[in-house]
Amino acid sequence: MNGCCAVSLALIHYPVYNKAGDVIASAVSNLDLHDISRAAKTYGIEDFFVVTPLVDQQALVKRIAAHWTAGAGARYNPDRKEALQVIRLATSLEDVVATVEARGEGRPILVVTDARPDEKNIGFNRCSEILQTGRPVVILFGTAWGLSRELIQSADYILEPIFGPTPYNHLPVRSAVAVVLDRFFGR
Amino acid sequence: MNGCCAVSLALIHYPVYNKAGDVIASAVSNLDLHDISRAAKTYGIEDFFVVTPLVDQQALVKRIAAHWTAGAGARYNPDRKEALQVIRLATSLEDVVATVEARGEGRPILVVTDARPDEKNIGFNRCSEILQTGRPVVILFGTAWGLSRELIQSADYILEPIFGPTPYNHLPVRSAVAVVLDRFFGR
Repeated sequence: MNGCCAVSLALIHYPVYNKAGDVIASAVSNLDLHDISRAAKTYGIEDFFVVTPLVDQQALVKRIAAHWTAGAGARYNPDRKEALQVIRLATSLEDVVATVEARGEGRPILVVTDARPDEKNIGFNRCSEILQTGRPVVILFGTAWGLSRELIQSADYILEPIFGPTPYNHLPVRSAVAVVLDRFFGR
Repeated sequence: MNGCCAVSLALIHYPVYNKAGDVIASAVSNLDLHDISRAAKTYGIEDFFVVTPLVDQQALVKRIAAHWTAGAGARYNPDRKEALQVIRLATSLEDVVATVEARGEGRPILVVTDARPDEKNIGFNRCSEILQTGRPVVILFGTAWGLSRELIQSADYILEPIFGPTPYNHLPVRSAVAVVLDRFFGR
């Protein structure tokens, strides 16, 4: 629990762009699962949905999560076990929405993140207010070259990109998740 | 340049602890180099020292950096080229200090980060003031199970750990760097 609100994360592997701008299903990265789980656990997020329609990638997610939550990894590193227990496998965004809605707190608000500025962007302060309403919220992060425009435009809110003092904004998704969670839930 | 100050990062592979609490030299992780370079570039840091006394690991750092800054990777992904250009190889912390001092702005202030609270911790606000003085500062991050106590206690300042609303604080160093830089330099 993050104290104030029912916030989940979703890491989307489809529909995202490849380097050429085609919509693809990206491969799951082992490091994404570890790093994002650890950030989630640090900031009180209990549900990290890993979203992929590819059956072989779903099997990979299950295998990695099982190794660290029930297998040899769990005995080797209990802190990692605690973190990777937040992983939830989902086949699509609709699957995520249905899972959250089935908890009986209503349909979740979808907030997408993207490195490109959008005219519909909301700021971190406004988004923080939305997180405080108590309604379930899913924050979506893309992989590869980013979430498809169609998915972005279909969400309820588009969070402003993360910027430092430079125009360079190519943070890894692993780092972007940590920064977003820290801005919302850091002490 | 980060606008206000001459801040560098150093990722320390020796002296750090292994799981058993022995002081070791850890292996360099390819992902650490990529993710920390990208965070550095985002937040305006131009010098990211990768510190290892191991000759084979130094060769690995050089090979990775060269691939992305001058080799096939540079042509494949110019954004990545720009990021990995911040990597500086160093053999020891003393080497980092000497390199920064040779620039003629004085001996750098050393700020260490650590996941364990310490009675000498300074907060992010106090540290931010130190960054604004214009003196060169190197922020040190550990690998493996963390920086040796001796190194931590020898630094000028020990930054407070990153916490969310939970007691869990096992962020990957890749994520910790991004969060620390965002707290200091995020817009």
